[in-house]
Amino acid sequence: MSGNAGERPRLTAVQYGVGPIGSRIVRVAVDRGIEFVGGIDIDPTKVGRDLGRVVGLERDLGVDVTDDAQTALEAEPDVVFHSTGSSLAAVSPQLTDALTAEADVISTTEELSYPWWDPDNRGLASELDETAREHGVTCLGTGINPGFAMDTLPAVLSTPCQVVQSIRVERVQDAAQRRRPLQEKIGAGLDVETFEREIATAGGHVGLSESTAMLADALGWTLQTTERDIEPVIADERVRSDYVTVDPGAVAGIRQRVRGIVDGDAVIELDLRMYLDAPDPHDRIRITGRPPLDVVVAGGFHGDRTTPAIVVNVVPRVRAAAPGVATMLDLAVPSYTRAL
Amino acid sequence: MSGNAGERPRLTAVQYGVGPIGSRIVRVAVDRGIEFVGGIDIDPTKVGRDLGRVVGLERDLGVDVTDDAQTALEAEPDVVFHSTGSSLAAVSPQLTDALTAEADVISTTEELSYPWWDPDNRGLASELDETAREHGVTCLGTGINPGFAMDTLPAVLSTPCQVVQSIRVERVQDAAQRRRPLQEKIGAGLDVETFEREIATAGGHVGLSESTAMLADALGWTLQTTERDIEPVIADERVRSDYVTVDPGAVAGIRQRVRGIVDGDAVIELDLRMYLDAPDPHDRIRITGRPPLDVVVAGGFHGDRTTPAIVVNVVPRVRAAAPGVATMLDLAVPSYTRAL
Repeated sequence: MSGNAGERPRLTAVQYGVGPIGSRIVRVAVDRGIEFVGGIDIDPTKVGRDLGRVVGLERDLGVDVTDDAQTALEAEPDVVFHSTGSSLAAVSPQLTDALTAEADVISTTEELSYPWWDPDNRGLASELDETAREHGVTCLGTGINPGFAMDTLPAVLSTPCQVVQSIRVERVQDAAQRRRPLQEKIGAGLDVETFEREIATAGGHVGLSESTAMLADALGWTLQTTERDIEPVIADERVRSDYVTVDPGAVAGIRQRVRGIVDGDAVIELDLRMYLDAPDPHDRIRITGRPPLDVVVAGGFHGDRTTPAIVVNVVPRVRAAAPGVATMLDLAVPSYTRAL
Repeated sequence: MSGNAGERPRLTAVQYGVGPIGSRIVRVAVDRGIEFVGGIDIDPTKVGRDLGRVVGLERDLGVDVTDDAQTALEAEPDVVFHSTGSSLAAVSPQLTDALTAEADVISTTEELSYPWWDPDNRGLASELDETAREHGVTCLGTGINPGFAMDTLPAVLSTPCQVVQSIRVERVQDAAQRRRPLQEKIGAGLDVETFEREIATAGGHVGLSESTAMLADALGWTLQTTERDIEPVIADERVRSDYVTVDPGAVAGIRQRVRGIVDGDAVIELDLRMYLDAPDPHDRIRITGRPPLDVVVAGGFHGDRTTPAIVVNVVPRVRAAAPGVATMLDLAVPSYTRAL
């Protein structure tokens, strides 16, 4: 494989949020020749330590993690990788700071993947869009889901269709292979009552509505509303992961569905199942249309491994994108790119 | 499904080449609200007849097929759909005329899908690029293959990978379901000797090298060379299509492979098999990398049905693209789009 990382100045980055996903982003980006000039996290066990050590590399990167975002951003990075939370309202001030420092921002904030659908987020998105344009930089929310598996990829797969009547995307993940926070988020190990009270009411995995709206936008469909339901997946027998043991009758994980309604019909259905020991994990995209399509990703896209890859791979597309808040649909055709 | 075709002026188009694929393009485009203001073909059985009737619609489109391209282009279409041949050298004057008429051009010319690889085509591509820029329009070569199944889609599927070591794309088509010219092109019904003399030496299906080069470009790999081989697929038992009968021992179709060599390694392999009664037709994309990926399109993308869809679906992306010769990689993320 040839690259030209050595032939031009290296891209510089700041990692904003050095949790499980942020750490993986740093490791993937370092491997591809990106130079980190800062790392930001509020965790006191990380602050003051070298970013390389904090993310699990066996070497220093020569820059310490700090809880002072402004100081880290004074290093004037080309790009800020941002991974601190799912809620746009919660992270919006962080994104604003990064954009004001004239960095392109690539964030795993689920609600940012398509912030124009949720009425609570549209105002924030407009403000971020204005800030980004003012500073000539781009702000993108992405990841495997939302960002790719249930929106960008189904959109691309519809390109060979003369007519699309409906799209159904099914994503089944074996949560036992995922990180601890995800296992907690899906309620693994809870009893059903606690699941209903704590998990279902909290809305489950964030981003399915955003994916639905993004896909509708791509297809030129005017989405009237989305319908959502969340239910627990109950363990038939005892299952265990590195972090939790689930007895029969308790919750092994979550099944979440969102339907996108256009002209009264559910033309988009996203069906996400994440539970411990899910058999036959996979992603499957079915298009009813002319011609119909049925595409299966054997084993599925592994969330914790693919989100960091997507964040890093879109760097050149984001650098080339028009200023403002972008979605994946606004970028040029994305791909792995050896030469960042 | 909602669209807004009625709320703004309809896009106008000229169809340049009204053969099997061109006819399908017209039918798909009419169905999506595009207005045809001209049709060009040299076939005397088509000239002077209404375009709608020639393409198999059961109604007139109000414009006759003509063999006088200049006159047809005087209608100042927004876009020219072009489908007359595989060779860039052969069709280049036609493309130049369409670009000079200030139309965006979307062509199924296989060699135009990535014209920068073949040394014989680079000069022509540069000239077309200059003409397109001069007139502020875009010129794209696309279709299912080359253009999507073995290049754009594998590129997009690499986005979730931290590392890509190699990509293998396998496309198996049951040629019995394809149009007559394709069955002739793959040598169905010939004896092996005639196949070797007439089909293998002609190079088989055009575009695999272009797909290989496009994919390498997307991945940031510097392609040193491509290696090609073509072999006949021999019938075990008698097979027949609507057009040809193949006896045991005769040629049922073709198997073509292209390997893309980077740093001495065959990191891209495209394997195309098109033969009568091929069992289990499919497209399969396998990425060796971190994580690895294995994606199967059940039944495969049907060439004759999907190429016209792609040509029409990319219209809004081509209209928004920068002037010049573009490849699929230069467009914003493509999809079916209800609202053209």
